[in-house]
Amino acid sequence: MQTILILGAGKSSTYLIEYLLESAGVKSRKIIVADILKRTAAEKIKGSSFASAVSINITNQEERNALIQKSDLVVSMLPASMHPIIAKDCLTLGKHFFTASYESDELRKLANDIKAKNLLFLNECGLDPGIDHMSAMKIIDHQKAKGNEIISFKSFCGGILSPESEDNPWKYKFTWNPRNVVLAGQGVSRYIQNAQLKFIPYHKLFERTEKINFEDVGDFDGYANRDSLRYREIYGLEKIPTMLRGTLRRAGFCQAWNVFVQLGMTDDTFQVDFPNGVSYRGFLNSFLPYHPTKTVEEKLQAYLPNMDLDTMPKIEWLGLFSDNPVPISKGSPATILQKILEEKWQLSPDDKDMIVLQHQFEVKGGKVNTKIVSSLVCKGQNEEYTAMAKTVGLPLAMAVDLFLDGKIKSRGLQIPVQKEFYDPILKALEGYGIFFQENQIPKNE
Amino acid sequence: MQTILILGAGKSSTYLIEYLLESAGVKSRKIIVADILKRTAAEKIKGSSFASAVSINITNQEERNALIQKSDLVVSMLPASMHPIIAKDCLTLGKHFFTASYESDELRKLANDIKAKNLLFLNECGLDPGIDHMSAMKIIDHQKAKGNEIISFKSFCGGILSPESEDNPWKYKFTWNPRNVVLAGQGVSRYIQNAQLKFIPYHKLFERTEKINFEDVGDFDGYANRDSLRYREIYGLEKIPTMLRGTLRRAGFCQAWNVFVQLGMTDDTFQVDFPNGVSYRGFLNSFLPYHPTKTVEEKLQAYLPNMDLDTMPKIEWLGLFSDNPVPISKGSPATILQKILEEKWQLSPDDKDMIVLQHQFEVKGGKVNTKIVSSLVCKGQNEEYTAMAKTVGLPLAMAVDLFLDGKIKSRGLQIPVQKEFYDPILKALEGYGIFFQENQIPKNE
Repeated sequence: MQTILILGAGKSSTYLIEYLLESAGVKSRKIIVADILKRTAAEKIKGSSFASAVSINITNQEERNALIQKSDLVVSMLPASMHPIIAKDCLTLGKHFFTASYESDELRKLANDIKAKNLLFLNECGLDPGIDHMSAMKIIDHQKAKGNEIISFKSFCGGILSPESEDNPWKYKFTWNPRNVVLAGQGVSRYIQNAQLKFIPYHKLFERTEKINFEDVGDFDGYANRDSLRYREIYGLEKIPTMLRGTLRRAGFCQAWNVFVQLGMTDDTFQVDFPNGVSYRGFLNSFLPYHPTKTVEEKLQAYLPNMDLDTMPKIEWLGLFSDNPVPISKGSPATILQKILEEKWQLSPDDKDMIVLQHQFEVKGGKVNTKIVSSLVCKGQNEEYTAMAKTVGLPLAMAVDLFLDGKIKSRGLQIPVQKEFYDPILKALEGYGIFFQENQIPKNE
Repeated sequence: MQTILILGAGKSSTYLIEYLLESAGVKSRKIIVADILKRTAAEKIKGSSFASAVSINITNQEERNALIQKSDLVVSMLPASMHPIIAKDCLTLGKHFFTASYESDELRKLANDIKAKNLLFLNECGLDPGIDHMSAMKIIDHQKAKGNEIISFKSFCGGILSPESEDNPWKYKFTWNPRNVVLAGQGVSRYIQNAQLKFIPYHKLFERTEKINFEDVGDFDGYANRDSLRYREIYGLEKIPTMLRGTLRRAGFCQAWNVFVQLGMTDDTFQVDFPNGVSYRGFLNSFLPYHPTKTVEEKLQAYLPNMDLDTMPKIEWLGLFSDNPVPISKGSPATILQKILEEKWQLSPDDKDMIVLQHQFEVKGGKVNTKIVSSLVCKGQNEEYTAMAKTVGLPLAMAVDLFLDGKIKSRGLQIPVQKEFYDPILKALEGYGIFFQENQIPKNE
């Protein structure tokens, strides 16, 4: 009997748990779902006799180790900062470890020991990172096998609203961690274009977007996402002249979001302490230069003269010109902004989210270059069965299943860029309606 | 016999050491000057029989403590990061401790213990911070004594070139620590204007300048310097509606410097790794969006369309459009930029630096408001006897002298905002040509 321990039973665990439960009986597996609230875990296992729900205080090492000791494999759906702690426990106790999060430097330090114990620690097996790696590697390996050279690779992904739920001027609501959305893009973004290294500071990021089109769901803004350079090696494209990974938002979003960036309202490095009862308008005003007679609206227009016509209504819709008090008046600007946005960008029970992912390759082979555009669109069903939970949870669940079936031979610290991962997982995802549409367009040099 | 230990014999210690040497014989004092190079220390004491020059490895606690043990009072002219270490030694060994640097949080933690041992730890007793505090407090105390209310206080200070040495388009050379100049203003600047809290993110700082005029030496750009809010309490102006501390650069400098800020070239948070031999032009190009046909010059113009006519020649004069290789190709963008600037902004032996400091008060008393403008201009003599060394070193030396003369009664962790500091020190500075010119202009409300 194989035992799987799943840590964290939040929204993004829904599909993961259901997938693993489905075959648990046939495959003689036991699933333990642990959450800070036992009730949350219990809701997810839906009374299955192959699963148990337990509560856990994750900061208590004894509690953690008692659960990990009982299992063969641990899946962590906890916040990424917890992963190194769980990973070390798993290493000590000799258990396999799976996540959908980015491989961290702390995990890289354990790589030799993981390998020595013949364990598999698989990270980046969700959506982005995850499905993006797998679908990209399938194309890259295929093109290389044909003797073709990939001269450009851009990849964009976004978790947004399904068009039928775009019922506000931003066409956006929080479909995942609000804090990550508010802080997205901070630091410097790096990519390479026509063999030129390119760096974008945060305050230019939301201006340097490119338009990305999906046949069925229209236009989006793509902005560069962190360090694209390191993926050259991961994908075996060390010498590629153009490589960019980006994030997608509905067209127009970035222009308006840039207002907050320009004002300094997304800053999380210092604490402000407004008088109690400070208004939305007062909060906004503190980021504008003083003027003896101009209104806040006039000062904003004068300060950011490049704002397009569609942006002001978006700012207004959020209530930022109102005299009502802000929900919290102390904290970093980013924290206060997040609170303001959470009140406005909350999903309704019927709202549907959507995942969009697009790879754009330019491939050189024979006399013509070919442009390959491979696109994924996945829509959620409702507030619980979201496209995000589906596309993050299913690939991870499938990797767990394949591994426990003995079909994965890799050991050590891995991300799913090998054929033994991407072939069966992409195939299995198709059965759940998660598949790419590929267009190939010949393109003269 | 009183023994003074001076740690660090760099350029900024010249005046400090000379001032203390002058009266050492009469006052039966011994001065130990310690530097990493004994030769540097020896040059500064000029064969005085009241002083000795020693070499010190400052990271070696035994060496440090042996020297501190021998002395009554320690003056640290080391980099500010060393101060908490030296301060802790002084606390343990029961020695007084003086610096020209900002009081740090680490020192604040020691405040009770310093007081309990009846020691004086005096910080911020140089120029800025230092002379600025003292000259401001003299005016503030005077106005309060007259029953007047201070409703606005802006204070600007800059270490720049004397007009006769302004022989490049930037009218700037490094007259102090280049790294601090390159990183200046990072983070968020905070001030208050007409009772409105104001925050300026770094990427807007060099656009939100105000023009500051000095009768004798002309126009400057003033930009907000870090957290002006905390000075309200320090100066006893808790309820003041307008308070701003700023930094001065020659008019036009900030517009041009803003190009580097906008490009992201002053970023010190990540490492770049250019191919060996990358040109100045290539370095600049990496911060510009890709364009298939435009030149670097055209891309820069298009990217930052608000650049004024005087800015392009400044960028060009630095060689940033040239095909020559940059001096270093690996490091943070800020490090590479600093290296480029160091080659161009180096002081010649005959160059003279200059200190400019201006306080602007608005004072309410009786029927009219009064504007008080108090200005200091101090010019250096040459590369060694700089205005910076003079205005940083003399107030600190005078504080040491007064303290050892028994004329300072304060104990504990202090900055020189009390009358017993500022009255005698400002008076003594006048004898060295360091004095303020004050204008009072009645101003109707």
